[in-house]
Formats: sequence, structure tokens, C-alpha cells
Amino acid sequence: MTLVWELETPALLVDLDALDHNAGLMAQRSTDAGIAWRPHVKACKSPAMAQRLIAAGAVGVTCAKSAEALAMAHGGVSDILIANEVVGADKIERLIEVAKLATLCVAVDDADNVREIAAAADAAGVQIDLLVDIDVNLHRCGVDPEVAPALCALIADLPAVRLRGLMGYEGHVMGLPDEEKERETAASAAIIARAADLCRADGHEFDVLSGGGSGNYRYVLEQGVLTELQAGGAALMDLTYEAMGVDGHRRALSLLCQVVSATHPDRAAGDAGWKATGRHTGMPLVAQPLGWECVGLSAEHTHLARNGGESLSIGDRVELVPHYSDSTVLLHRTLHAHRDGVVEDAWAISGSGALQ
Amino acid sequence: MTLVWELETPALLVDLDALDHNAGLMAQRSTDAGIAWRPHVKACKSPAMAQRLIAAGAVGVTCAKSAEALAMAHGGVSDILIANEVVGADKIERLIEVAKLATLCVAVDDADNVREIAAAADAAGVQIDLLVDIDVNLHRCGVDPEVAPALCALIADLPAVRLRGLMGYEGHVMGLPDEEKERETAASAAIIARAADLCRADGHEFDVLSGGGSGNYRYVLEQGVLTELQAGGAALMDLTYEAMGVDGHRRALSLLCQVVSATHPDRAAGDAGWKATGRHTGMPLVAQPLGWECVGLSAEHTHLARNGGESLSIGDRVELVPHYSDSTVLLHRTLHAHRDGVVEDAWAISGSGALQ
Repeated sequence: MTLVWELETPALLVDLDALDHNAGLMAQRSTDAGIAWRPHVKACKSPAMAQRLIAAGAVGVTCAKSAEALAMAHGGVSDILIANEVVGADKIERLIEVAKLATLCVAVDDADNVREIAAAADAAGVQIDLLVDIDVNLHRCGVDPEVAPALCALIADLPAVRLRGLMGYEGHVMGLPDEEKERETAASAAIIARAADLCRADGHEFDVLSGGGSGNYRYVLEQGVLTELQAGGAALMDLTYEAMGVDGHRRALSLLCQVVSATHPDRAAGDAGWKATGRHTGMPLVAQPLGWECVGLSAEHTHLARNGGESLSIGDRVELVPHYSDSTVLLHRTLHAHRDGVVEDAWAISGSGALQ
Repeated sequence: MTLVWELETPALLVDLDALDHNAGLMAQRSTDAGIAWRPHVKACKSPAMAQRLIAAGAVGVTCAKSAEALAMAHGGVSDILIANEVVGADKIERLIEVAKLATLCVAVDDADNVREIAAAADAAGVQIDLLVDIDVNLHRCGVDPEVAPALCALIADLPAVRLRGLMGYEGHVMGLPDEEKERETAASAAIIARAADLCRADGHEFDVLSGGGSGNYRYVLEQGVLTELQAGGAALMDLTYEAMGVDGHRRALSLLCQVVSATHPDRAAGDAGWKATGRHTGMPLVAQPLGWECVGLSAEHTHLARNGGESLSIGDRVELVPHYSDSTVLLHRTLHAHRDGVVEDAWAISGSGALQ
């Protein structure tokens, strides 16, 4: 029996009770709304964790990139959406590898790209499903609704690709205040719905309207316009999602570090800096020991300040809650799955680092 | 012959001419000042690049952590300083592995830690050199000068460890305006010098006084108090070091991405978001094509806006200059070394990710 406190630091931990609670909650809320839950695994990057979300009720996973999808396929995930455009011969070759292992759906917003994917799939004898990506005012990728029917017609004319539906990612709404978030989530869904009407009016048939992030998923479910929900990050939960108002979830991710310097009773340096916590939305929170806070991050050091707690000694363990799981997990190779501090499994973070 | 423009994106590039210029400049400036240059490799994390700095005149390398040092030792680097405290049995065991392969020196600020390192080194039949870490007002690690003589005395009493000298890292001065930076660099050096006087007055002999970062290295060299310079990041150079006033260096690091969506003539989405560029000091700069700028970073997307350039198409390559190399390189696995756009080598970033 290994206790998390015995792991070499820094060690990334996932609390199985909290994870199962969060996954069950998202699955139940989706079921109650009659919407399929296809959680994004960009945050966890772990096939083992993805399998756990599927066991909780997810219909498959959503990925960001071709290499992430391949890691999931190699990890046994059988139904994969890449909710981004995949461009270039090397990456399309990777799509073929994924499509040989799993049901694969990919977002598209360009005719030449659709032709290239179809030609590669046809040559390899695989099928790749496509979602036409609609720009729902994020202004990053995706076409305007008026352009969607032409892409649907192109897909219908090509072998080895099949139109599954439309998607749009409303990334610009996640940080808005509640009332605006509700309104802008509805506005995004209305843009997808309008694109769907235009495509169906042209005779195209499909069943998927996909979107939604952890920051706005309650509104996506309440509004009921979309048929698939991509939100997945809140399965791990973190301080950034808390700041976005995500409710009912528990903090499942934490980062264990240890004190490496304690030459003054009111401060200590931990061995997790921003190269282990990630950084750009804020400071981690000290979960244990009580009475200490993180007041700064160097590259390799947690700057800990005493705030009523007992003084620390070198070697003492400190458990941090990362501010944004998405920026933390990709720095690590292993997610230590534990229950009440007892390690039950070590999950490979197969998609860590900058992927292709 | 492979051109950088043919690499799969995102691809991290180092321009050998610029790197050699920067390394030669830092080595020459150090030689002129009579100070040994021991560049920190926390930014590059690549033994092959470390070897190139040594070929340019560096006396060895400075590392942040035990796993980084082991990667360097496995890569053939024979003289290594870990400029941080190394705490815990698992990490001290790693020190022993390094000490079997290379001359190793480690920072210490705690008596129990010194005893543990000495006991492990003695049991393994290796020698580990030590630098007593002085708090030069960064208030992160290190002891006050008055405490240093007792640590020197302890080291003198123990087998298998040897006092090499003192160090202090003045991380708090790097972002200061020039005049303050010069003054605070002098103040830090004075604290180390005072600690050295106290230790020598007690009969302890040593030859190394180590410190300095890329942000203040010109002042360290001008002031001539320290005997070894740890600055290494500016060998890669980046926008953060430019903002710190580092002069005479060229930008050696860049990140190649490609356009994955271009549905509007005035904007495009590249496939390098903050999971490939890193993020917390600022936005990357678009080096090529001219007339475009990066106006935002999503997790996996560069938000590119046209500013006088030609419209982009999907598949077009875009070269970015990361804002802070230190937060970029650890996300990648390979540094593609090129000259004038022709790839000459692929250097493994052996220390990528969150290390132990």
C-alpha cells in the first residue's frame, strides 16, 4: 500500500471519490437534459481517466489534436471527436491511424481540407465522420452559417467521409458573468441552430449539434439546443472553474510538493514552481497543511508563507490545488489516482507536452 | 536536406548562428571579467545544447533539479552544479547517480540535509561538492550570512562532501529598472562577500562565489565580486530578456506553427496555443510572415490578426518568437537546430516536463 504522502515530489494526484462524483454529476445532468456527454480530455490527457468518464456515462471523448486522439485510441477509447481542424498531410496520416482503431469524427471548416481528409481516408479504406465547424462568435475557427451548406454538399459528394453534424465552441463566454454567460450561450446555440436549418433546408441530414465547455455547460443543458456536450475539464475541477461559477463539483486534482528550504519560521520553499503547477490564471491554493498560503511561484519553487499554521521543516509535504488543471496536467507524465490518500493506480498522461 | 518549413508543427527551432553568437558573447564577456561562466540549462533542458555552450567556453552547467542534472550527466556533461537544495532520500539517491558520472556540486542550506547527502555519498563511495546557499534578499531559499560558518564547519567534519564555496541567487533583481538592478546586484554580491568573510574568518577555505542570472549578468561581470556566473537563459534569448534590457544578444529560439483555419481574410488560427508557446510573461511575436501579429492564445490556437500582410491560407507556416523561452521549451521534446532554415540536428529536450 502506497500513501500519496510517500510519492516522490512533485506528484500530481487525482482523488477518485471527487472524480467519480464529478463525472457522475456531469453524466446525470446530461442524461436529465437528454443530451449526450462527450467530455473533452484536453485537460486530463489520460486514456485511463477517459475510460473512467466513459464508465460513468460518457458516449466517447472530445480531443483537441490528432496526437491526443491517437493517444486515446491507443489507450482503448473507441469513439473520438477531434473538435478542431486537422491540417496537413502528416496530421491527416495520423487521423487514418486513429480511424483504424476507433470511430473518429473531426471538425472541418475548409473545402480543400475536407477533400484532403476524404482522399486519405478513401485511400486507406477507413471512414472519417465530419462536423462542420461554425464560428459562434469566438472568431477563431469555423465558418459563418451561410457557408455551412456548401461544405455539407461537398462532404456528401466525397467518398470515405460522412456528415455527422455541426459544432461550435463558445470559448469567449466561459469567463463572463452569469447573466451574460446565459445570454451568450443561447446566442451561440442559436447560430448553430440557424446553420443547421440552412443545411437541412438544402437537404442535408445529420444528428449531432456539438459544443459547450465546463464554464457554461449548465446553460447548454438547460437550453437544450445542442445534442452533444463537449465539457470535460470540470471532471477534474479547479480554482479557475470555481471562479467561472461551476457548481456542485469537487476539487479532484492536486499537486503534492515538499519543503526544500525552511530557514525562516514564517516561510518555506516548496519544490513545485510554475514548471509543475502551470501558471496564467492564478496562484495555487494550499490544501494542506492548514495555515499556509502560496504567495508566489518561481520556475521551480513554491513560495509559501505562514498564516497561522505550524512552522514547516524540510521534507514536509504540502498539497496544492492548481489554479487551472488544463495548464498543470500537460507538464506531468503520471496522474496518481488515490482514494483517501491511498494510491490505487498510476495513470499515464499519454498526451503530455506540446502535441501535434 | 530538411528545411524547417517542412517540419511537422508545432516545431521548436533554435537558430545555430544566433545561439553561437550568444554563447560566444557570454563566454567572452565572462572571460574579460575574469569570471567562470557556468550557464544555467533550466531553459534549454538539452544536453546537446549544453555541450555547445561548453564548447563555447562554459566551465560546466548549472541545473535546477536532480532529474535535470541526471539528464545532463547521461548526455555527457561532466561538471554540474545544482543551484538548489535537493531534499529527500529518492532525490539524494539520484545525486549519487549523477556523482558517479560527473563532478557534482549542490547547494545546501540545512544541516540535516548536509548530513543526509554526506552519508549517502560516503556509502556510495562518491564525492559531492557543496555550496552554502546564502539568502541574498530573494527570501526563497538560503541562510543568512551569520549561519554560513556553522554549515561550513559541519561540511568540514563530514566525509564524502567538500565545501566548494557559497552561492546566492538574486532572482528578485531581474525585472528591476537598470539603476536599481545595478544597485541591488551589488547589494546581493555584498551579502555573499560578507558571508565569505565570516566563513574565512573561521578558517574555512573555498574558491567559488556563485550567482547571477541573464537579467543582471552584465552587472555581475562589471562588479567582479562573484567568481562564477550562473546566467544561461540569454543563450536562447527571448522577448522577456529583451524587456529586462539584455543587450547584444540575438533571438535564437522560435516556434513554427501552421495555419489551421483561415475563414476570414483579416485573421487566422495557428496550431500553437499556450500549450506550445507557454504563457505568463506575454504574447509571442510573429517573426514571419510580416504584417501579422499574435493577438491572443487559446490552449491550442494562436489567434493571428492581419496588420498589413497578405491573407493567409490553411497550411501556411508562421514563425513565432516565444515571449519567455523558459516557459516554452519544457513543453516540447525536440529542439530543431537549424542554420538559415536548414535543419542540422534534432536535440532531445531530455529535461522536458515537470522534473523531480
